[in-house]
Amino acid sequence: MENKIVLSGTRPTGNIHLGNYFGAIENWVRLQDQYECYFFIADWHALTTGYAETDVLRKNTLGLLADILASGVDPEKATIFLQSDIKQHAELFLLLGMNTPLSWLERCPTYKDMIANMSSEKDIMTYGFLGYPALMAADILMYRANYVPVGEDQSAHLEITRELARRFNFLYKTEVLPEPQPLFTKAKVLPGTDGRKMSKSYGNTIALADTPDEVKKKVMGMITDPARIRKDDPGHPDICTVYAFHKVFNEDKVPEIEEQCKGGCIGCVACKKMLQEKIAEFHTPIYEKRTALLQDEPKLLDILRQGREKASKKAEETIREVRKAVKIGFDTIEE
Amino acid sequence: MENKIVLSGTRPTGNIHLGNYFGAIENWVRLQDQYECYFFIADWHALTTGYAETDVLRKNTLGLLADILASGVDPEKATIFLQSDIKQHAELFLLLGMNTPLSWLERCPTYKDMIANMSSEKDIMTYGFLGYPALMAADILMYRANYVPVGEDQSAHLEITRELARRFNFLYKTEVLPEPQPLFTKAKVLPGTDGRKMSKSYGNTIALADTPDEVKKKVMGMITDPARIRKDDPGHPDICTVYAFHKVFNEDKVPEIEEQCKGGCIGCVACKKMLQEKIAEFHTPIYEKRTALLQDEPKLLDILRQGREKASKKAEETIREVRKAVKIGFDTIEE
Repeated sequence: MENKIVLSGTRPTGNIHLGNYFGAIENWVRLQDQYECYFFIADWHALTTGYAETDVLRKNTLGLLADILASGVDPEKATIFLQSDIKQHAELFLLLGMNTPLSWLERCPTYKDMIANMSSEKDIMTYGFLGYPALMAADILMYRANYVPVGEDQSAHLEITRELARRFNFLYKTEVLPEPQPLFTKAKVLPGTDGRKMSKSYGNTIALADTPDEVKKKVMGMITDPARIRKDDPGHPDICTVYAFHKVFNEDKVPEIEEQCKGGCIGCVACKKMLQEKIAEFHTPIYEKRTALLQDEPKLLDILRQGREKASKKAEETIREVRKAVKIGFDTIEE
Repeated sequence: MENKIVLSGTRPTGNIHLGNYFGAIENWVRLQDQYECYFFIADWHALTTGYAETDVLRKNTLGLLADILASGVDPEKATIFLQSDIKQHAELFLLLGMNTPLSWLERCPTYKDMIANMSSEKDIMTYGFLGYPALMAADILMYRANYVPVGEDQSAHLEITRELARRFNFLYKTEVLPEPQPLFTKAKVLPGTDGRKMSKSYGNTIALADTPDEVKKKVMGMITDPARIRKDDPGHPDICTVYAFHKVFNEDKVPEIEEQCKGGCIGCVACKKMLQEKIAEFHTPIYEKRTALLQDEPKLLDILRQGREKASKKAEETIREVRKAVKIGFDTIEE
């Protein structure tokens, strides 16, 4: 195990679907064996775009935790915690914010994007939403993470984090906040059941929380090659959603399926049936684990409590160094 | 003693001068006998306009604390604490920020004013400075203060605090954050030694930290009626700085001095000498107390530690209610 620190978080905005799983959680399971990992549920971040919709926040938090654990993230290997449990994130966010240029935040590409696309549906013209890259920087720098697994759309965030770390270190003549590096991880790409990007807002997801029956129905209802009417018409696997799923869930059989489809030797229903069985092999055990976990809320809270203890130790170390660098407060008072 | 809560804070940006003393601290001494008072040193606020000048922050903090104590604010009566010691302020600031409209902050009159007047000298185009009214709101609402002593220029801040409290209570269907009322206190107005407003940036202050000799020199060098050349010229007390000081330090003698000045019966030097003695009667004991206090740093830190204990109890009560209202986190984890 390398002595490097990895940090990653996810917002409790709903149940994990297969797109999230293959985009992030599957990597967490692998990374926890290679690095000192901090994985967190970003409940404060959920407020940046949903301060008014908090009725489901606790339910979503527990659901997400169950998803993560059922997927194989192990609290004995990684530190799994709830962001709002670690108050030091709020303090570091405040301190970083003091020297964060407004222009860096206003020019952040994802910020501009979301203001352009989302502000008619949701109130995101808030101080909290403007500051979310600084909050994210606080999350990352708190654990002095060496690596942050990133997708393409998050690289701008990591850039702001790196700049804020550099700026802090320069201003306060310190090296307390190391610049994290992006960890570009291979992620399997799954489309949604309708062929578009899998996304809750498209209603085309398969969630870990879906029952095996729901999953079966969703798979059997997937869109295939619309030009293929009869079984012996030659199919076009490259535009077929089911084929894209086979590539993830049925890798060994892919050449065979491709040949059969192009040759008109296998019907779409049979092809979906094959896929459905493969997905069930993957999904049902996770589904059952998460269902059992959710029936034991005290256990879930206990896992968060353990994570809190571990994370807050590290966080307190960092924030002390940060206070020392900023020259604020008195060490003698902190014990 | 009324069962009402008063909160007031001041930034550790330098030594308290007589303008600050009569504008705020003198009121604190009176209020501590009438209300449950929380007085704090706003060190995080000092960063909003001075994130790069932190070398003097601790020295200024101790100096301010000594000023406050030497002036008669009593840690047995009021809770005196350091803002950055009470981490709950950062958490409440973060939570309030989530639903603080950017426009409220951008349109805050003092914000616009300072951006217009100060941004050429100092970098205040930061996320922290934009958010300072929200941080101030967190400071006040944290203690569910009923009253905040305000000067005219702070009434807009209190208005934002009141609006943020209303908005929070409305959004989360709660009454946890009561709206504070302004406490308009009588404050004696002292000009600076040159007749303009007393202000560090004009170099016309008399500080509690000035030695008695320095104070004497400053008083003897004050500007009087420039039209009065000889002792027997009739003076114009209304435009005389020394006369303005007599009104504060020598109230009983004011009618007599006015008559003698207008009648050309007292020279400016004699008049200053009288004033200087009166100011020394007030200033020297405070100066000596603050000097002694500063020689006992452990005692000062101990006072902050006591204040921290008392303030954080109250703050933790509030923040728990706030978390409950927002429906974030799990109570079982907090013990």
